[in-house]
Amino acid sequence: MEAQLEHYFDRLWPICRSLTGDGNRETLRILSEIVDLRVHEVPCGTKCLDWTVPPEWNIRKAWIRDSCGRKIVDFDDNNLHVVGYSEPVHTSLSFDELCLHLHSLPDQPDVIPYLTSYYNRRWGFCLTHTQLECLDKHATYEIYIDSTLDDSGSMTVGEAFIQGATDREILFTTYICHPSLANNELSGPLVTSFIYRHLADRQDLRFSYRFLFVPETIGSVYMLSQKGEAWKRNLEAGFVVTCVGDAGPFTYKKSRRGDAAVDKVSLAVLEQTESKYNVVEFAPFGSDERQYCSPGFDLPVGSLMRTMYAKYPEYHTSADNKSFMSFEAMAGTVRKYVEIVGVLEKNKKYVSRLPFCEPQLGKRGLYPTLGGQKDQVKAIESIMWLFNLADGRHDLVDISQRSKVSLIKLSDTLSVLLHKGLLVAGNE
Amino acid sequence: MEAQLEHYFDRLWPICRSLTGDGNRETLRILSEIVDLRVHEVPCGTKCLDWTVPPEWNIRKAWIRDSCGRKIVDFDDNNLHVVGYSEPVHTSLSFDELCLHLHSLPDQPDVIPYLTSYYNRRWGFCLTHTQLECLDKHATYEIYIDSTLDDSGSMTVGEAFIQGATDREILFTTYICHPSLANNELSGPLVTSFIYRHLADRQDLRFSYRFLFVPETIGSVYMLSQKGEAWKRNLEAGFVVTCVGDAGPFTYKKSRRGDAAVDKVSLAVLEQTESKYNVVEFAPFGSDERQYCSPGFDLPVGSLMRTMYAKYPEYHTSADNKSFMSFEAMAGTVRKYVEIVGVLEKNKKYVSRLPFCEPQLGKRGLYPTLGGQKDQVKAIESIMWLFNLADGRHDLVDISQRSKVSLIKLSDTLSVLLHKGLLVAGNE
Amino acid sequence: MEAQLEHYFDRLWPICRSLTGDGNRETLRILSEIVDLRVHEVPCGTKCLDWTVPPEWNIRKAWIRDSCGRKIVDFDDNNLHVVGYSEPVHTSLSFDELCLHLHSLPDQPDVIPYLTSYYNRRWGFCLTHTQLECLDKHATYEIYIDSTLDDSGSMTVGEAFIQGATDREILFTTYICHPSLANNELSGPLVTSFIYRHLADRQDLRFSYRFLFVPETIGSVYMLSQKGEAWKRNLEAGFVVTCVGDAGPFTYKKSRRGDAAVDKVSLAVLEQTESKYNVVEFAPFGSDERQYCSPGFDLPVGSLMRTMYAKYPEYHTSADNKSFMSFEAMAGTVRKYVEIVGVLEKNKKYVSRLPFCEPQLGKRGLYPTLGGQKDQVKAIESIMWLFNLADGRHDLVDISQRSKVSLIKLSDTLSVLLHKGLLVAGNE
Repeated sequence: MEAQLEHYFDRLWPICRSLTGDGNRETLRILSEIVDLRVHEVPCGTKCLDWTVPPEWNIRKAWIRDSCGRKIVDFDDNNLHVVGYSEPVHTSLSFDELCLHLHSLPDQPDVIPYLTSYYNRRWGFCLTHTQLECLDKHATYEIYIDSTLDDSGSMTVGEAFIQGATDREILFTTYICHPSLANNELSGPLVTSFIYRHLADRQDLRFSYRFLFVPETIGSVYMLSQKGEAWKRNLEAGFVVTCVGDAGPFTYKKSRRGDAAVDKVSLAVLEQTESKYNVVEFAPFGSDERQYCSPGFDLPVGSLMRTMYAKYPEYHTSADNKSFMSFEAMAGTVRKYVEIVGVLEKNKKYVSRLPFCEPQLGKRGLYPTLGGQKDQVKAIESIMWLFNLADGRHDLVDISQRSKVSLIKLSDTLSVLLHKGLLVAGNE
Repeated sequence: MEAQLEHYFDRLWPICRSLTGDGNRETLRILSEIVDLRVHEVPCGTKCLDWTVPPEWNIRKAWIRDSCGRKIVDFDDNNLHVVGYSEPVHTSLSFDELCLHLHSLPDQPDVIPYLTSYYNRRWGFCLTHTQLECLDKHATYEIYIDSTLDDSGSMTVGEAFIQGATDREILFTTYICHPSLANNELSGPLVTSFIYRHLADRQDLRFSYRFLFVPETIGSVYMLSQKGEAWKRNLEAGFVVTCVGDAGPFTYKKSRRGDAAVDKVSLAVLEQTESKYNVVEFAPFGSDERQYCSPGFDLPVGSLMRTMYAKYPEYHTSADNKSFMSFEAMAGTVRKYVEIVGVLEKNKKYVSRLPFCEPQLGKRGLYPTLGGQKDQVKAIESIMWLFNLADGRHDLVDISQRSKVSLIKLSDTLSVLLHKGLLVAGNE
Repeated sequence: MEAQLEHYFDRLWPICRSLTGDGNRETLRILSEIVDLRVHEVPCGTKCLDWTVPPEWNIRKAWIRDSCGRKIVDFDDNNLHVVGYSEPVHTSLSFDELCLHLHSLPDQPDVIPYLTSYYNRRWGFCLTHTQLECLDKHATYEIYIDSTLDDSGSMTVGEAFIQGATDREILFTTYICHPSLANNELSGPLVTSFIYRHLADRQDLRFSYRFLFVPETIGSVYMLSQKGEAWKRNLEAGFVVTCVGDAGPFTYKKSRRGDAAVDKVSLAVLEQTESKYNVVEFAPFGSDERQYCSPGFDLPVGSLMRTMYAKYPEYHTSADNKSFMSFEAMAGTVRKYVEIVGVLEKNKKYVSRLPFCEPQLGKRGLYPTLGGQKDQVKAIESIMWLFNLADGRHDLVDISQRSKVSLIKLSDTLSVLLHKGLLVAGNE
């Protein structure tokens, strides 16, 4: 999986993505090789809740030339050099006039910042502070941005769906609106695609799985305007997949509810499998959980990340690039999500068919026949706990937490007891 | 305010207050200069719940003379010298006989203790242990107490009321039954009077405010016999105002409920504004919270103090005097109470008018238009939290505690959002 | 009591108890001298829930003889030498063949382990590892076990009952199926019998008391098959009495519910009377709480022990003998159980007859008449707390925990207030 992740990373990296535009279409076309994507075009100007889909933005060229005609800043070098959604411009400006349109980070002088201006018309360039300081304060500069903002265009969203035994859904949503930025965001679509691949061929899924590849904020607002009410009824769990590409420890950001199944299962899996990880309480900042966890929807959507947005200096700069990625860790993130899905699938409340006193395990071949031995307990502890707590009120995570027996060990024993018909799922 | 507090302190200090009597009337007359007081006279013998208003006690003179005719203990020197409610006496006694009526504190030899005997007829003198030890054990003493205990008198209580937009009440109750004692009690009526002054002219009050100046225990028992049932329906919060005059850190004693609005708001304000303060769980000892928090009423009445009764050596002795007071701290207590009132007034549950996804703040001028900047979150965090938690289930203190944004900052933002009609109070 | 405990210990010690058999009958016959026991015989083959009463086992002789005819292992020396429920055998075997039937503890070479095989037919000997290592690996051994397994026999159970004012029951259950083992188990029947003696003559019991002396597991399964449904309605509290004979600190193992009255009262008593004790969460291992706390019954049954089974190296070996016992501690266990019973009996919710404001204690002789004294509070704190929390929602343990006044002090005061009619029990 690591090689595949890297292959797709390299192909997707140079594309200039934004809320809209051909870069997004190209991104989804490439991801279609991995995911069975349905692609929608949402017309610009579409109202969704408090928002409106903005004009479609496309950009071909952009540069600043000095008086000698040399391109001193060039979009072809790095697509972060242009403020996202910059309007077209072709003019000459003095240094002082130009400065109003330049953005750099004085305290990180060697990186290009990432900026956008989706809903206010302006234009601008981003550059390293070192570049900025080399400019001649008495010179005149030629500015060129060959972009279009088209009210008759559209916003492109991608969606995939795996039908399970029930219509109750688990959602993975990721975004495709950042240009060449690695952890936040390219790791997100990549990991989401490979989660899809792990689940697509399974025949035993209880839940249905939905995967969204949409621009941040406006894309999620649009999806919620379409499906929010249905999700209030049938969303079992959801994840915003972002910042999942570096080698840092996992970070789980809780849903607004804080104790939804998505929180309970994710945290139990992390606790039992990771020696170090971070837990972050919900806050209405960050990514699309802002929309999913708005008070009118309040959906059970959390986010399992590696190093979280705004918590690393490379965030939203040109330094968030391939060198910050670990494809091994990225594959580990995919596996961790799949492990969490495995527990979500099994995390039912069970009922014992033999609830009155202990079952006689010996006659069912589940118990050492020679009584009194001091190490007997260890061998049968998962059996005993499952029988004792299969009362229709404890789900698998509850049983694991109360018994301190691992989810993995309980799952194995559970399969045996379900197969023998000694336990049944409480809601079946 | 400090100068005014000191002025009234000095005028009220020499007056001999008790459960009843002319000292109490004089005290309320002076406080009427600050507070629009209604004064009631409750006839002696009035039954209230398990209690009966005792006879009215007045005292003019009291002394002990030695055989040379020198006044060795004199009520004119300090009104603590006489046990409160002492019956009249004029006689001569041997030292041994007299001793049965003398009270001193051997471990605090230089202070006069404060004692009363409201419901058992006796007489007595309090003096410093040093004074006691100077007495001649073989001498005879002339005793004189010129007091009256009048069954046809009355108990005097003072009350003020500020009508707010609703009849839901906030209560401040303080007591006027201790003679020359400073922290416990003269600070109480003084602080209560100046809280009144801060609220009396406000036109924007949601709650109505009631202020009681009554003798401890019997005064509160009387008030509860009259208004207890009404308060069970309409008391939002109440405070016993006592021990509020010294420079120690604040102490908040919780109501019996422990989690009433009065507790929640007082503790949140202290937590956010004081680096050091004490929290005391409710106990059925202390002051009039014993009555307000009796199980039949169980009213939401707490007490914000400085150094709490029985927790300082000067308590109930002649050392609890002006030198123990800080008029600056006393003014600070007034301001802290007013600050708590401010939060109580605003501590509603709010509802967002735009609960589905985030509102688009940009088009409402609430958001920086240039996206991507790293410090954006700080600027808008109180806006985002208010929108996110304005779900009709979180009050302002809940929002502050969950968001870790201060009540002051939230209050400011709240005013803007209410003004723009983006939030509304949940119960309006 | 210590001497009596030792007397009965010595008489019961040599008897070979098991799930069934004459040793159990003899045990109950001796205990009948202390307890008014009713003894039932339950026919072998009786189905109870998932279990079946096994054949009756009796054993007379058992030994291993070496080639010289010397008995090198002899049941007459220690009844642990034979695996419980061994089938009869008389044969000669080589060392290698014999070894398949020998059990020792290599890491505790000087003790005999305790083993049983109730539901699988086999035979075996237990011996010290030192004994095992002295055997001649090239010799032949004569094996003799004179036992019977009789399908037409019965299982013997003992039961005693003390009728209280109500039919709500408190249960003490202990087991009588281990041969010569001291802490686990002989201490159990001894302590249970003396608890019975302490309660049998009391006329003031609110609850009825049931005492069971049954073989572990199958005996409790049988009792629950008979009474489980009734106990779901009327069992106030229950205790599995085991491991109560050594001098270690107390260990309380909680019921499955964790917050039942049995847990709350036992833990409060331990907290207030013991400087050191252990608390163990419920787990479906151990003794008969496995049956009582199975999910279909989920009865409020805990266990107050000294040093818990499986937590001491002597457990289930010949070293768990009289030298591990302390009859002084055993008597202390009886007294602790009786103390817990005392609190269970009184642990009602009370209601004040004077709930509005404080009662005037002075006129009832409950209060020092001279007010203002600094140490007044201590003298009346249990009175004040009882009046304040006698609201029909706090039981005696709640009051003790909230007030931090000991159960003993509260009980004394409670008696006075009940006697004066100032408080009444909430459900009377």
